[in-house]
Amino acid sequence: METGDTLKDLLEDNDLTAVRAWLGTQPPYVIADELARMDALAAVVPFRMLDKDAALAVFEELDPVDQQQILSGLRDKAFRDLIEGMDPDDRARMLGEAPAKVTHRVLSGLSPRERLMTAELLGYPDGSVGRIMTPEVVALPVDITAKQALRRIRVKGGNAESVYTLPIVESGRRLVGVCELRDLVLSDPDTPVAELVDTQVPTARATDPAEDAARLLAEANILNLPVVDSEQRLVGLFTFDDAMEVIEAADTEDAARQAASLPWSGHYMFAGVWQLARSRATWLLLLIVAATLTVTVTRAFEATLEQVTALALFIPLLIGTGGNAGAQAATAVVRALAVGEVRTGDLARVIWRECRVGLVLGAMLAVVGLGVAVIFVDPRVALVVAVSLVVICAWAATVGGSMPLLAKKVGIDPAVVSAPMVTTLVDATGLIIYFVLANAILGL
Amino acid sequence: METGDTLKDLLEDNDLTAVRAWLGTQPPYVIADELARMDALAAVVPFRMLDKDAALAVFEELDPVDQQQILSGLRDKAFRDLIEGMDPDDRARMLGEAPAKVTHRVLSGLSPRERLMTAELLGYPDGSVGRIMTPEVVALPVDITAKQALRRIRVKGGNAESVYTLPIVESGRRLVGVCELRDLVLSDPDTPVAELVDTQVPTARATDPAEDAARLLAEANILNLPVVDSEQRLVGLFTFDDAMEVIEAADTEDAARQAASLPWSGHYMFAGVWQLARSRATWLLLLIVAATLTVTVTRAFEATLEQVTALALFIPLLIGTGGNAGAQAATAVVRALAVGEVRTGDLARVIWRECRVGLVLGAMLAVVGLGVAVIFVDPRVALVVAVSLVVICAWAATVGGSMPLLAKKVGIDPAVVSAPMVTTLVDATGLIIYFVLANAILGL
Repeated sequence: METGDTLKDLLEDNDLTAVRAWLGTQPPYVIADELARMDALAAVVPFRMLDKDAALAVFEELDPVDQQQILSGLRDKAFRDLIEGMDPDDRARMLGEAPAKVTHRVLSGLSPRERLMTAELLGYPDGSVGRIMTPEVVALPVDITAKQALRRIRVKGGNAESVYTLPIVESGRRLVGVCELRDLVLSDPDTPVAELVDTQVPTARATDPAEDAARLLAEANILNLPVVDSEQRLVGLFTFDDAMEVIEAADTEDAARQAASLPWSGHYMFAGVWQLARSRATWLLLLIVAATLTVTVTRAFEATLEQVTALALFIPLLIGTGGNAGAQAATAVVRALAVGEVRTGDLARVIWRECRVGLVLGAMLAVVGLGVAVIFVDPRVALVVAVSLVVICAWAATVGGSMPLLAKKVGIDPAVVSAPMVTTLVDATGLIIYFVLANAILGL
Repeated sequence: METGDTLKDLLEDNDLTAVRAWLGTQPPYVIADELARMDALAAVVPFRMLDKDAALAVFEELDPVDQQQILSGLRDKAFRDLIEGMDPDDRARMLGEAPAKVTHRVLSGLSPRERLMTAELLGYPDGSVGRIMTPEVVALPVDITAKQALRRIRVKGGNAESVYTLPIVESGRRLVGVCELRDLVLSDPDTPVAELVDTQVPTARATDPAEDAARLLAEANILNLPVVDSEQRLVGLFTFDDAMEVIEAADTEDAARQAASLPWSGHYMFAGVWQLARSRATWLLLLIVAATLTVTVTRAFEATLEQVTALALFIPLLIGTGGNAGAQAATAVVRALAVGEVRTGDLARVIWRECRVGLVLGAMLAVVGLGVAVIFVDPRVALVVAVSLVVICAWAATVGGSMPLLAKKVGIDPAVVSAPMVTTLVDATGLIIYFVLANAILGL
């Protein structure tokens, strides 16, 4: 996949023949990847050198933000060719994030048919299946033969994004099931479609969250999911490639949330320093405010610390370990929720298992902690450290494991229960556990 | 998706009629999901109640570990029907993780043709494309027409896992390109296949890592990736549903690694407490040993702490915030590497941007930190806290952002650079920064 020179190098050398040669030999997704790594003004230059079909293929691989920037650099003719050629769902996705001015320019440049389809998709809520599905579907009636079905597909299939999954509908476009192109091709031409239709196929509602539909498609191993409205009428098809993009974006979002960053849809290398800082600042600021609790707790136990100053030595180790154990539990449960292994009803069972896991881990760590502590301090202080490790680990795992479920119960994305959030929470509570145990064991 | 009673409830009530009714109405992936949530002995009972086709469909949805447990509960006839019906790639995946005894029982129960295909797949390295691809492909010669091609597909397509992507080969099965079933169906029957073939399609080598091939398939938006050997000869097809599973598993692994857990392929609710504890213990133990550095550092600066005991109050807040900022940077870069937005060659640029992001964040946090600290302590100590926040954040973001790239450079999975690892590293170094700054500013 790696070429010696990148597109950027070639452009900087102003070697337009080499640029043209490079563009002619690379597949669209590679070209799109290179363009996304350049800034918008520079990217328009090679983009204009692509022929009409290649331009469309490359354009469809770009993120909505990059698409808008390319569009703003194009003249009317090239602009219109491009947006008219796009699939309606890709167009709706781009416009969903575009300023009103761009939306207007795009919609007014379209043919009436394409404009209608795009406007319909834009009517669905952001992040819903309706926004992403393709409305261009070849639907078949149930009372024809395989041969007749293939003839219809030949006539109507040219515009459809996929003809591999063929929804079968009865009057009023009510969905009966789906038929696979594979079965139509492989079976005897006179077979009635009714014999080939799968009526148990899962469907999505156009207003469902796109991520749920994508996970359903992945779990059920199907190529395209028929999309219906509230009255089971066929409105479109949710395709596997869109599902893969949705899952990748959702996993990227979850990864960002897990580290207490706000998710955003840009490219890491393309984002400005301010943009990156903004996505991380909110939680860092909230968490530092929460962390002042640790100052209050430490202050409340200042007398304890002054009597046994050796206790201060182990504060970072104890709260660090507690934070780590809590982060492990939280991440495991967030992921298990995302892929459907855990449901909100499992709360009690999750608490019970994480509490035991935490005790087991705490016991192991206590052995190490005791060994380390006796090197540095009085054995009785070392005992405080060891016992604290057991209690803090059990507590941290329980908190970390249950918080994502509690978040989901109250309707918050469980992925916001980030490692830093759990760490900060366990820092303050872990200190209380440590000092209370110290007072008890050392008899202060 | 939610049914009132789960399969488990029905079984516990011993209501076999209701179990049978439930099994008859649910799609295979829902049944598999319920079975995976039960223990092996209990799961065999409803599994035996499925008819032959349903049993196979459900079985193929299970994880390899669950598959083995179901298999061990089956008699010879049911056992043979099941494994003979599986696709060779699914069979190879299950056997890849099975004990030798199971492998022997499975292979010896197969027909010679199926045994050969399975054994060939098992010859590829674990985690490679070859292990997961389907070897049952309909390959077409380049010198026929669309109509002739469709006839061949009808004859040979019954066993193939997919007939939507048709590899076109010349003598010696050397790959020329692919043709889509869609194009064969939609074009005039007399069109030569040569006109429909796409020769620029990306391919995978059978020995490539499966994750790379899956990401390539997703990025290029294609349904199936032709798989070739070192001499460009066609050996199979890597299908979109396998790619989705590989990506989901890789993202689950990355999520686990990001929280310093060892990845394992089991179900969260199905795993034993010891199994969960084992996956988390290794890193926790390594990290607590590394955390003893914080004890050493604190001890080295004990004189400073004894002179200004107020400094101890802010230790958890400072190292906690530094850890959070480092974890954000590390997670962002790990994800950007996974989805291909950052390459190892970008190291210098990543360091430069993370350093600036850290400075910006540190400056914001310093304002809050100063405000909090002046409430509790002497303004000069508050100043130490504020300056430390700026330096620690810049340092943490730089370390967190560059470590995944350095790991990748030396051939380690960047996802092992976990939030807890960065946090622990930043704890010790953050303390040094804090105490050194305190000595300098307070003139100790």
